Amino acid sequence: MSSSPVLLTDRYELTMVAAALADGTADRDCVFEVFARRLPHGRRYGVLAGTGRLLEALADFRFGDDDLAAVRAQGITDPTLLAWLADVEFTGDVDGYAEGEFYFPGSPVLTVRAPFGQAVLLETLVLSVLNHDSAIASAATRMIGAAGGRPCIEMGSRRTHEEAAVAAARAAWLVGFGSTSNLAAGARYGVPTAGTSAHAFTLLHDDEAAAFRAQVDTLGTGTTLLVDTYDTLQGIRTAIEVAGPELGAVRLDSGDLGSLAVQARELLDSLGAHRTRVTVTSDLDEHAIAALAAAPVDGYGVGTSLVTGSGSPTAGMVYKLVERDGVPVAKTAEGKRSVGGRKSAVRRHDAAGTATAEVVVPGDVARLDGDRDLLVPLVRAGRPVADLDPVAWLRAARDHHEQVRTTMPPEAWSLSRGEPAIDTVDA
Amino acid sequence: MSSSPVLLTDRYELTMVAAALADGTADRDCVFEVFARRLPHGRRYGVLAGTGRLLEALADFRFGDDDLAAVRAQGITDPTLLAWLADVEFTGDVDGYAEGEFYFPGSPVLTVRAPFGQAVLLETLVLSVLNHDSAIASAATRMIGAAGGRPCIEMGSRRTHEEAAVAAARAAWLVGFGSTSNLAAGARYGVPTAGTSAHAFTLLHDDEAAAFRAQVDTLGTGTTLLVDTYDTLQGIRTAIEVAGPELGAVRLDSGDLGSLAVQARELLDSLGAHRTRVTVTSDLDEHAIAALAAAPVDGYGVGTSLVTGSGSPTAGMVYKLVERDGVPVAKTAEGKRSVGGRKSAVRRHDAAGTATAEVVVPGDVARLDGDRDLLVPLVRAGRPVADLDPVAWLRAARDHHEQVRTTMPPEAWSLSRGEPAIDTVDA
Repeated sequence: MSSSPVLLTDRYELTMVAAALADGTADRDCVFEVFARRLPHGRRYGVLAGTGRLLEALADFRFGDDDLAAVRAQGITDPTLLAWLADVEFTGDVDGYAEGEFYFPGSPVLTVRAPFGQAVLLETLVLSVLNHDSAIASAATRMIGAAGGRPCIEMGSRRTHEEAAVAAARAAWLVGFGSTSNLAAGARYGVPTAGTSAHAFTLLHDDEAAAFRAQVDTLGTGTTLLVDTYDTLQGIRTAIEVAGPELGAVRLDSGDLGSLAVQARELLDSLGAHRTRVTVTSDLDEHAIAALAAAPVDGYGVGTSLVTGSGSPTAGMVYKLVERDGVPVAKTAEGKRSVGGRKSAVRRHDAAGTATAEVVVPGDVARLDGDRDLLVPLVRAGRPVADLDPVAWLRAARDHHEQVRTTMPPEAWSLSRGEPAIDTVDA
Repeated sequence: MSSSPVLLTDRYELTMVAAALADGTADRDCVFEVFARRLPHGRRYGVLAGTGRLLEALADFRFGDDDLAAVRAQGITDPTLLAWLADVEFTGDVDGYAEGEFYFPGSPVLTVRAPFGQAVLLETLVLSVLNHDSAIASAATRMIGAAGGRPCIEMGSRRTHEEAAVAAARAAWLVGFGSTSNLAAGARYGVPTAGTSAHAFTLLHDDEAAAFRAQVDTLGTGTTLLVDTYDTLQGIRTAIEVAGPELGAVRLDSGDLGSLAVQARELLDSLGAHRTRVTVTSDLDEHAIAALAAAPVDGYGVGTSLVTGSGSPTAGMVYKLVERDGVPVAKTAEGKRSVGGRKSAVRRHDAAGTATAEVVVPGDVARLDGDRDLLVPLVRAGRPVADLDPVAWLRAARDHHEQVRTTMPPEAWSLSRGEPAIDTVDA
């Protein structure tokens, strides 16, 4: 497996370059924009994620000898194209919304300006990264909202592609998850990792007490014991017998979590374990989390629904040519239309600082008080504008997200289906 | 980024090993089974995919110095665990369903027998690979069934994580797709790649005819022209004017595909382009494909719904300890129960060779005439039983799938929600 990202690309990007090289259009100055036509499933907002990962991949986007051999082996043998691919390096400009920013239908979350050949070649990778990571971040943000300040752990690695899992853990932490189960996300992005034990660990032992004793001896009394292997309430009694009332937490991973949490809390309190937390982790999504708001739960572990975008596993963003040699262009046949011309974008706010509109305009915006520019320079003449250190980048994105979520109107946090929290307007 | 797969692992696998090393249980002989408790969304079957990818990753599953440093950096510093990780190598046995095989609730699609520490360490990676790839293969098989012999192209890379895209292309080809847009899938797995041009290529040019001419000059008259940028029927006329009636195909990527296909076919025929194919590619899933069965369509391109598992983006398989030192074990508290003991599995068939039941039994099966063993040896004493060459492996899996799909009962091909096509029975 090549470590270069260049083959993570649709074949047609290369055949378009070949044809454009042949007829002299490959160097036309082009502007491509990335946007979502709509939010999935009546969502109220989207959250942009993946920009840092994309810029890292862009920095490595060079065709090596192995890549060129792989292209030839697939029957793409045009010598002009192959010579061009061997030399091509991105020399254009990229602007975009800050990673962690909210977006709405039509928000130009990424703008690529470059000669056609260079810009079209990036389409597949740009969309793969942003569509995946934004889908996860958008779902994760809803879960954070539903959790109302209780900590959330991302633990869905086993339910998605092994590399998508790392990106999902990154996207979840970006919007406020406290930790992840995924070790690679810790290693690559500095996301705090967490985890203690599974049912298998209890079943490995001759009895539950022996399993708990082994875990406490190794991980300390602050650990989380999984208590629902045999009989949940008896498991809690055994946990406190073994660990004492200073046990960090018990985890409930099956059954009716709401009523079990109440019973667990009462039992723990009756055993003097007042500070032992109750963590729940079975098939949670934002709706299940919201339904547990009144239950005595101290933390949520979220797996499947997080890594699959809670019903919307892709953000559905597109990468569209909007300008060619300064001329606005757009598809006009019925369906999948777009607006030609490079866009400016600001978010409008009321006097209290609450967002009221997403202003997306071809050309320049007439700014009002309280408007905030959304497009920031990311790449100039092929070079990243900021340091791409993955850990520092992600921390900055997390900080940005935390800050801008306070500007969203209250209706953004509704979990029901409806209209975007603010309208996208063109003036 | 490490090229080793060992960090694509949940932290708790390591903390369980640490605790088991400390109390002497890490070497207990264990059997873990992978199975799905149910099929998602009223599906009639699942298709197992990813086994070849998993065995490749397993062959590289060794902790290098960088991996160990990354583990330490996350606060996992137990010296006994770190010394064990530095040396650990899988020495156990793996059996499983053949890649491409159909599965049903409870089918033991993978069985891992090894000392606890070795076996538990693989949980996350095993599930990530099989859950993702099987979800895609299961959805793709439904599309192949709905397409009724018309060729399908996988083109969803842009809608999923960039590495998941490669695995999705592989899984789609495994079950009968004819090609993929993804170049890396061609390079790594020998999947045929396809693709010609996007709307951007037309918009790049001064007019549609110039774009078509450039494409035909480079790719030949056998190419596929995308005709719906400005006016679809006029686009078809222009396409035939430029390419002549020997044009390979026109592609419709928007609008009402059923009526457009009829109009396109009539127009092409009126222009003498009787052999020019009509390919459609806009937001198709198995239901949309089925709805186009009577339309004059010659091929389907499938994107989003393929790579997102058409509503079921994960197969929901679990990895459960079922035997420890020869003793069957199982979780017994309410929810997420399983059946203890290592299982045998055969598929039962009637005299005509049609599958009638999935027989899954702890211990051995009393075989009847027509029973086919489903579990095949994959790894013995840590070594793969067969050559893992990715191209040859995938071709064999595709052949296997093609063969076994003829044994499914007709109700398997119903797209409506319902019961599994055959029952899973225990005798």
